Amino acid sequence: MIVIPGPASQDLGRKVADTLKSRTVPVVFKTFPDGESYLRLDGNVTGEEVVIVQTTGPPQDVHIMQLFLMVDVAKDLGAKKVTVVVPYLAYARQDKRFLPGEAISIETFIKLIEASGIDRFLTVNIHEEGVLNKFSVPAENLSAMTLLAEYFKKKGLTGAFSLAPDQGALELVKEADKVLNGGCGWLRKERDRLTGEIGVEEKKFDIRGRDVIVFDDIISTGGTIAAAVKMLKEQGARKVYAACAHPLLVGEAQKKIMQSGAEEIVGTDCVPSPVSVVSVAPLIAEALAERGI
Amino acid sequence: MIVIPGPASQDLGRKVADTLKSRTVPVVFKTFPDGESYLRLDGNVTGEEVVIVQTTGPPQDVHIMQLFLMVDVAKDLGAKKVTVVVPYLAYARQDKRFLPGEAISIETFIKLIEASGIDRFLTVNIHEEGVLNKFSVPAENLSAMTLLAEYFKKKGLTGAFSLAPDQGALELVKEADKVLNGGCGWLRKERDRLTGEIGVEEKKFDIRGRDVIVFDDIISTGGTIAAAVKMLKEQGARKVYAACAHPLLVGEAQKKIMQSGAEEIVGTDCVPSPVSVVSVAPLIAEALAERGI
Repeated sequence: MIVIPGPASQDLGRKVADTLKSRTVPVVFKTFPDGESYLRLDGNVTGEEVVIVQTTGPPQDVHIMQLFLMVDVAKDLGAKKVTVVVPYLAYARQDKRFLPGEAISIETFIKLIEASGIDRFLTVNIHEEGVLNKFSVPAENLSAMTLLAEYFKKKGLTGAFSLAPDQGALELVKEADKVLNGGCGWLRKERDRLTGEIGVEEKKFDIRGRDVIVFDDIISTGGTIAAAVKMLKEQGARKVYAACAHPLLVGEAQKKIMQSGAEEIVGTDCVPSPVSVVSVAPLIAEALAERGI
Repeated sequence: MIVIPGPASQDLGRKVADTLKSRTVPVVFKTFPDGESYLRLDGNVTGEEVVIVQTTGPPQDVHIMQLFLMVDVAKDLGAKKVTVVVPYLAYARQDKRFLPGEAISIETFIKLIEASGIDRFLTVNIHEEGVLNKFSVPAENLSAMTLLAEYFKKKGLTGAFSLAPDQGALELVKEADKVLNGGCGWLRKERDRLTGEIGVEEKKFDIRGRDVIVFDDIISTGGTIAAAVKMLKEQGARKVYAACAHPLLVGEAQKKIMQSGAEEIVGTDCVPSPVSVVSVAPLIAEALAERGI
């Protein structure tokens, strides 16, 4: 098995290879002055089983194009099998036609990544699990929630309350709660009809004087998490943490969440960021080793 | 026939529709805060012959993704036939494997645009004509050189000397010269081995006191054109103009060319820019009308 750490997941790709004790084929990449991506596989892949690790966080379309280029060149050079690991899958929230004429962007992505020649697809904490059914090739979703919870356990947070900022994240906090054993609950997202601002419903939890961790798949602009943290602090929570698989942290998200009273934001290296302190390399390596590539 | 002016070619798309007296279906598009593209076709395309006009100038990958999304949604909604018009085709310069392991990016693009479901492909002044052979669907290249030359003719520049900054552009200046009748020639690009700077070979032309127009397919960083203009001015040319189909004008390109002594930079709306004074709408409309979509 050969691992190709893509331009967007250089560190994670190398960690996966290290864990698997696999050879890597580096990618030489650059951006031309006009903005086009250039890339070159710097090693032999002919006849090999290849794993390409490339996240599709911002700038999403650049990273997606690089992914298409890597798969196509690996296949073109005669790779026997190509597994792509996309730790964060962009466009996964655009999985339905809400209004007539809308692009179902994730379907377009899947159609094209399959056309580029992949044999298997792996991702982490996909926003909608149902999206996996749209693949023709084997597609699998892993979850980083146990790894995140273990990070907090090591910090001495066993017994902390795990909270989902919306019902969609309830399954995620249940995984975390299995490690932390402090009970869990969920909130409902609310959007102010006038201002468009995102908030969370007022809901009482038995958290006075207790530590609380808000778990979500993605932290994007941070609006929901910040509102949740604020409410939890007002309800008397001791320390409130924010944790996620995909710290996109768009714009002022980090500042917004910290100013709402959070103790720490913890993310994984599914999306490289200043808060990516938990690595999903063991998770990915395990899936590749256990079930073969 | 229905024309869909894509997000990257709103004005040109509408002009093409106007010229053809065709109905347009507008695209509602936005960028989410995290950078993902959203788009929606705001009208019926079911059973229709659809023409999507979308250039792929910078940011190339965003415009390419939007193109994939538009084709896929049009097909998904039951469009009978989809022709895409990509006035400027990104990645066309990456059409060969120069070093082992290199992505042949244009082949990946073609594979994916075909997988997205197009029935026909149209572009303007593609960098390498040979790229068209890589398409399975009918693919055609149009040239804007006659339109550009006519712009100069209207300005009273009949008899101006037409110059290609490299041999690859010689066929282009021949087309221009048919309109301007002032003779034509070409230069050879040179790259300084030490500084990496692009220059042009020193070559004498019969241009003292005459107007010269340098024609090229793309003006990207403007290095070649600026060097050519400078040399022509030193050889005593009266006024020197720069003209191209695709004014990418990366960074300081415009300033660089004007400071080298150019009178004016003229581009087409294949790539919307401050110098896009010549529209290729008549060219595209003619191709669509004459040969059907």
